[in-house]
Amino acid sequence: MTKPHNTKKTIGIVGLGLIGGSLGLSLQKLGYFTYGISNNSKNSKRAAERGLANIVSEDFQILNKCQIIILALPIKSLLEPDERLLKSLPKESIVTDVGSVKKIICEKWQNYHPNFVGSHPMAGTNQSGVESGINNLFLNKPWVCTPTQKTNTNALEQIKNIARDLQCKWICTDASSHDKAVALISHLPILVSAALLKTLSLKENSSINELALMLASTGFLSTSRVGGGNPELGLSIIQNNTSSLIDCLDNYNYSLQNIKELIRTKSWDILLDELKEANKQYFEINKS
Amino acid sequence: MTKPHNTKKTIGIVGLGLIGGSLGLSLQKLGYFTYGISNNSKNSKRAAERGLANIVSEDFQILNKCQIIILALPIKSLLEPDERLLKSLPKESIVTDVGSVKKIICEKWQNYHPNFVGSHPMAGTNQSGVESGINNLFLNKPWVCTPTQKTNTNALEQIKNIARDLQCKWICTDASSHDKAVALISHLPILVSAALLKTLSLKENSSINELALMLASTGFLSTSRVGGGNPELGLSIIQNNTSSLIDCLDNYNYSLQNIKELIRTKSWDILLDELKEANKQYFEINKS
Repeated sequence: MTKPHNTKKTIGIVGLGLIGGSLGLSLQKLGYFTYGISNNSKNSKRAAERGLANIVSEDFQILNKCQIIILALPIKSLLEPDERLLKSLPKESIVTDVGSVKKIICEKWQNYHPNFVGSHPMAGTNQSGVESGINNLFLNKPWVCTPTQKTNTNALEQIKNIARDLQCKWICTDASSHDKAVALISHLPILVSAALLKTLSLKENSSINELALMLASTGFLSTSRVGGGNPELGLSIIQNNTSSLIDCLDNYNYSLQNIKELIRTKSWDILLDELKEANKQYFEINKS
Repeated sequence: MTKPHNTKKTIGIVGLGLIGGSLGLSLQKLGYFTYGISNNSKNSKRAAERGLANIVSEDFQILNKCQIIILALPIKSLLEPDERLLKSLPKESIVTDVGSVKKIICEKWQNYHPNFVGSHPMAGTNQSGVESGINNLFLNKPWVCTPTQKTNTNALEQIKNIARDLQCKWICTDASSHDKAVALISHLPILVSAALLKTLSLKENSSINELALMLASTGFLSTSRVGGGNPELGLSIIQNNTSSLIDCLDNYNYSLQNIKELIRTKSWDILLDELKEANKQYFEINKS
């Protein structure tokens, strides 16, 4: 364990689901003192039992004591924040979030708080809720930060220190580039994969659907996993990154139609080259 | 271990790669006596060292001693079989294959041998070659058989006994239905997934490709895994199941365009329903 950069800082974590709970567990191990906010008494009790923060409460006022506040909330709650939350954020504190889209969130939050810095620590499992937080979720994962020209440099430095303590890969970019990049690498796969699941229930395939389902194996499950994930999370991502996603869908469609045309014209040599490139690209991404 | 149904049968396995080698290991454990054919002296030596069959040889003539012969060869070698192989198959033996397309193979082989039955034991890893065979590869996996009206019922029964001894799920269907079903559930995902990898290297995305690659995580790797698999195997599947695959691509395209249209028109309620259906379908397939 490396020596923490923010030893004396107290950190508030709003939301103790997968991301917030995992942050709480890891930050405590690093010597940070954490205040965690849960949304109801049942979750609050369970979060305290699991030790997701040093102090767990449903009362936003405990944030008064925090120097850094991490909003580990769903996108919708970030875009339409609870008035009590806004009132409880100390003006001198540093505030960041964990939302998987950045432009729309940063635009809102730079009006809500003077020391807001947009963050997207990119880690996950297919679990959610108060039971899902785990230690070391963020180890070696990207922590993307999207400062603007107005961002307080000290605030950015404090967030960077947290990411460094968690041994994340620190990546700084603008919100718009972030949203385009995650549309391509993270959000497009959800749609590609959901469309594959959807194809199985088309009437056009009804005569062979039953047989196909009997033959489904690891390859199908791997390709369709993210499309079969949390529907509400999927929708909130799509709703808030629409234009980047439509561009990605157009580009994806171009790639797919190109493959179809190579098959239709039996251009096997070119198709083999394309599959070799895909194979090479996959292994390059997998090793990095 | 259940009592073998074919205790006294000797089985020839032509090709000792992933499928042939795994069959050899499991069938020996079940009490079958196996003759394995390897394609060169280096592989033959290694196959013998690994004990992939009771007797390993490069000489097709050892098949003279076999009552059941399993052709565990790539599709291309099944469609253009070695003349020495054809000459070495005893007329009274029962012959099956393991090819992942069935119509084109069955049409050929019903002319090559009177007791041919088309098979497709559906199991795999991402390994290949003489080192890749493992015991229990076929446990609980589908073994699809595609008999025709001309198929010898005793021959079919013998293959069924082998599949049952290996504890496979026995599925009988016609070759054409098989090819349509695997196009949908197994071959379409390869193209969907390869197109996703290909989209990452389009010039249209060049400004954000580098950032996107830095942010690639488990979701992207899961969705792109089968598209990044063995290019030669992918090509041989596509080449020999072309018309079913083009139908699947058209249906997939319909599903994807439908999702895009829901996004474009911001039909969030309908899109949420679609994502919920995809989620439900994924978990139904995953548990079966």
